[in-house]
Amino acid sequence: MEKITIIELKESILKDNDADADKLRLELKEKNTYFINVMSAPGSGKTSTLTALDKYFKGRIKWGVIEADIDSDVDAVALNNAGIISVQAHTGGMCHLDADMARQGIRQLDGYELDLIVLENIGNLVCPAEFDTGANLKLTILSVPEGDDKPAKYPLMYEVSDVLVINKVDALAAFDFDKSRVESDVRALNPDIKIFYISAKTGEGVEELAAYILDKIREYRG
Amino acid sequence: MEKITIIELKESILKDNDADADKLRLELKEKNTYFINVMSAPGSGKTSTLTALDKYFKGRIKWGVIEADIDSDVDAVALNNAGIISVQAHTGGMCHLDADMARQGIRQLDGYELDLIVLENIGNLVCPAEFDTGANLKLTILSVPEGDDKPAKYPLMYEVSDVLVINKVDALAAFDFDKSRVESDVRALNPDIKIFYISAKTGEGVEELAAYILDKIREYRG
Repeated sequence: MEKITIIELKESILKDNDADADKLRLELKEKNTYFINVMSAPGSGKTSTLTALDKYFKGRIKWGVIEADIDSDVDAVALNNAGIISVQAHTGGMCHLDADMARQGIRQLDGYELDLIVLENIGNLVCPAEFDTGANLKLTILSVPEGDDKPAKYPLMYEVSDVLVINKVDALAAFDFDKSRVESDVRALNPDIKIFYISAKTGEGVEELAAYILDKIREYRG
Repeated sequence: MEKITIIELKESILKDNDADADKLRLELKEKNTYFINVMSAPGSGKTSTLTALDKYFKGRIKWGVIEADIDSDVDAVALNNAGIISVQAHTGGMCHLDADMARQGIRQLDGYELDLIVLENIGNLVCPAEFDTGANLKLTILSVPEGDDKPAKYPLMYEVSDVLVINKVDALAAFDFDKSRVESDVRALNPDIKIFYISAKTGEGVEELAAYILDKIREYRG
């Protein structure tokens, strides 16, 4: 096993994060690297979804992951064990990443000349939704056991996301989870959001999600 | 159904939250009201745990709940439907409550002369851990589907909590969740934490948790 790179992110001093996020998008466009910001509550299955996607990414694109966490390197170790390029970024207690913090992570992956970089954001439905990290696509995961009331309670996350992945559908029978409630609550906030149902565990629905992401990357890279 | 009271919390201007939290504890002691801060990730089952506890609280204590959320009143409606006194507090996007914000919620329940007030904090494993709300007891819930790596990734929450409730144990068979890993990670952060395994859904373990809380209240009220 390779040694995990852990970087301690520095809080950025920039006042205008939105402008910096636009600048980061230009920097990434020059390298032809697509950038996805993956957000969810703790335990929704961000890391396992990425691991499941790798089956369809492998051989098609070169990709890597910035694992952002308050502490520990468990997610970067998991990805590394699955053969996925990753760097662990610690936020020093902060519950989000802004564009400059994302840039600090991206810099660690510079040598790989990647087609896709994924930021696995801090597990949190509040702060990460408030900051543009410079990503081309914002994807949020809601897992079935969390319940169908999350869009009502954390509306901003669903307003700002381009893609909603509903994970752990293999557990649907064990939980009261009303798909139509989620869909109507989410569409009321964000009519254009793309919704995918998957189980990162069983692999159900992952191929469709992977195909959508690969299309987006193809479009972007022209 | 009663109309749900919704209050918009004002950000407090106090610099020294710790001192204000101590002051709030004194104010509550004068009223002989015990105060519990319940924290967890979104969807761990805070509201359903409180609803399950009510079966054992009813007839023994008078209690009420401050439901803190970014938006919506779904949790206060759920408690109200279950016959539990509750007030919905909105934080205006903030991901935590401090002592003065807790006081604003407590004030809404003043007329009831309660033995116990529970603050159901924002669903978040980061910010709420950083603020003393003036509570006598801090209880955090971790649900089985979230995974056994949460203490490693969000250590402060487990360091500051007096009680860890592991919820949704009825779903243990469907998820890889290593109890001994959680216990050893948590005990390394906080050797004195009390750990309870429950299912708010089936009722398993709820009586023991209720008995523990009722004992604490008895001790406090002398």
